[in-house]
Amino acid sequence: MKRFFLSLSTLFMLMNMCYAQQAIFERRDNSSPKFNEDGTVTLNLRAPEAQKVSVTGDCIEKNYQPMEKKGDYWTYTTKVLSPELYSYRFYVDGVEALDPSSIERSRDVRSFMSTFIVSKEEGDQGYLYKNQNVPHGNMAQVWYNSPSLGMDRRMTIYTPPGYDGKKKYPVMYLLHGAGGDEEAWPTLGRTQQIMDNLIALGKAEPMIVVMPNGNASDDASPLYTSLVKKERPKTSYQESFGDIMSYVNNNYSVKKGAENTAICGLSMGGFHTFSISLLRPGEFDYIGLYSAAIRMGGRSQDPIDVQLEKSPEASAQIKAVFDAKPKLYWIAIGKEDFLFEQNVGLRKYLDKMGYTYEYYENEGGHIWRNWRIYLSMFAQRLFK
Amino acid sequence: MKRFFLSLSTLFMLMNMCYAQQAIFERRDNSSPKFNEDGTVTLNLRAPEAQKVSVTGDCIEKNYQPMEKKGDYWTYTTKVLSPELYSYRFYVDGVEALDPSSIERSRDVRSFMSTFIVSKEEGDQGYLYKNQNVPHGNMAQVWYNSPSLGMDRRMTIYTPPGYDGKKKYPVMYLLHGAGGDEEAWPTLGRTQQIMDNLIALGKAEPMIVVMPNGNASDDASPLYTSLVKKERPKTSYQESFGDIMSYVNNNYSVKKGAENTAICGLSMGGFHTFSISLLRPGEFDYIGLYSAAIRMGGRSQDPIDVQLEKSPEASAQIKAVFDAKPKLYWIAIGKEDFLFEQNVGLRKYLDKMGYTYEYYENEGGHIWRNWRIYLSMFAQRLFK
Repeated sequence: MKRFFLSLSTLFMLMNMCYAQQAIFERRDNSSPKFNEDGTVTLNLRAPEAQKVSVTGDCIEKNYQPMEKKGDYWTYTTKVLSPELYSYRFYVDGVEALDPSSIERSRDVRSFMSTFIVSKEEGDQGYLYKNQNVPHGNMAQVWYNSPSLGMDRRMTIYTPPGYDGKKKYPVMYLLHGAGGDEEAWPTLGRTQQIMDNLIALGKAEPMIVVMPNGNASDDASPLYTSLVKKERPKTSYQESFGDIMSYVNNNYSVKKGAENTAICGLSMGGFHTFSISLLRPGEFDYIGLYSAAIRMGGRSQDPIDVQLEKSPEASAQIKAVFDAKPKLYWIAIGKEDFLFEQNVGLRKYLDKMGYTYEYYENEGGHIWRNWRIYLSMFAQRLFK
Repeated sequence: MKRFFLSLSTLFMLMNMCYAQQAIFERRDNSSPKFNEDGTVTLNLRAPEAQKVSVTGDCIEKNYQPMEKKGDYWTYTTKVLSPELYSYRFYVDGVEALDPSSIERSRDVRSFMSTFIVSKEEGDQGYLYKNQNVPHGNMAQVWYNSPSLGMDRRMTIYTPPGYDGKKKYPVMYLLHGAGGDEEAWPTLGRTQQIMDNLIALGKAEPMIVVMPNGNASDDASPLYTSLVKKERPKTSYQESFGDIMSYVNNNYSVKKGAENTAICGLSMGGFHTFSISLLRPGEFDYIGLYSAAIRMGGRSQDPIDVQLEKSPEASAQIKAVFDAKPKLYWIAIGKEDFLFEQNVGLRKYLDKMGYTYEYYENEGGHIWRNWRIYLSMFAQRLFK
């Protein structure tokens, strides 16, 4: 019986060639992206009829660099690249085109880029973002009911390797930025790869990671939304956050209590993190603000620290958060981030009040590269 | 406290405009795809510098149709389209480009297309493929251990609305074709939408749908694989299938027994369905072959029915399947499918042996349009 099936499957491999559903990728010297021995990367695009081809992305020195025509191909070689996930996109006679030689691409809000990862050694940032041969956690897109927003809503949940519904795990809530959705952290943020790899390296505790959709008027990402007509949400996302926590507590095997609960987020998600922690003082022992948008209501032009000082309500809420003595209040931002000054203001206020927090500052602006780095760093600090 | 947060979130909405992570989509008259009142669809691409723009796809009458230049835009209007999911792709001076105005796109093996759905009324094929405001099931990408293939492997699992790990559900195993992977049915196959909508319409029983990766030498789709070096698999996928069934039985709340178990698949997955049912007679009361590749080992040029008759081993295996009296043995294929004759041969053999099966034949060839239709039809027949 064994031989019967083996020969069938061999024949089938030959058949693959002619399948209508297939578009076999031809390997060529002009493959793209091509990783060169000197640490540069060459991007190649076959476009014999094009008049002008340029390339843009975070692996390109300046935006919209012209590519050089060599025969039927247009080509561009980057400078030496450090370990990271990079993105790029071609423009062919003014029209955007992703790299047809590569299936690695990511959606950022409504915009797509081709991507590749540079890794040089175990444990570097590129290594953390790649699929490694280590035990994998699972990812699920689940729908939870939000009574306070009056709809079923979609979120993404990572469960760590070995999760079996019996053993209990701590939980990290991981929030996306403006324009993003429940697919942002799993794709651009490389959540699964970062968590799998940090856990396998013994650098992070196994944990559940919850990635909700932070847009109160949406039920899901634009690719999954079923809301034909959007209604004004009944309440704010922050005030609906208890619906998410209840769903997670009731449907997953979680360790409860502040010492087992973290919340963090990027940009708008940093603002959500900030304000959810104010609404729920003492519920999170780990709070992470990544390039957070720290804004107060009203039209005040005062710096954030002055605004916070002038608001007895906000001051009382912040006091309650720090009175509960969170184990880690972590603020991270890039030097060129357009929200840098807001974070200076927040830190000024926290310093003045004598509240304990940690601060991490690095290069760069309001970009995914930094948010992936912040997640990798923050995740290593939790539940230890 | 409420006002504090509401005003913060209002301000934040204004801030969104300037976010680096955002690429706001401008609505224009030249939106694309544009659904016209007469049932046609207009595709528009802004490309003032391009010399030549064409479009191809299953909504276009012939492949690579030239688009017409109107000002800065190139445009093409389809004929009147019936309810369906359609795909298309532009070629700008010879280079493929997806529609930058649309985020709906799908990967088929290594090839990407922009997509849109036409639906005219509740219950039509387009309706079944769209996200509707109905209770949703969850989708999970899970890793299971396959001792017989010697690796952890990734698969996608749909659990129906209301699934809570307590109530038990029947299971459908749904297998992809050659070149595909565990992401094929969830994306191009619209499994979640079809199941959610059929269940909401009362046309299908709530069930678990298991979508494994059918390539024995892979652990996951090319986007998630962590196998650097592929080894020759220790056994065939079909012979490893018990590992998948064990994982599902041990980790999900399933109704066991043949009467609660279905298996079906397209093309290579139809062949897998055929051969797994031979290896496990009496385990599946519902067997569905969609455009199945029916091949025997060896070099025989005989028609399939003759080959089956000449093989005592295959004949005995098929007899065991039908002796167990499956409730539904369903064969579906399009008239222009390149595997049509193979299926004629299989039916000839089954007819000659007096085995009971049902046959569905429709227009078209070896295409996803047919496989989505077959899934919608087959799912309605199960577990009733």
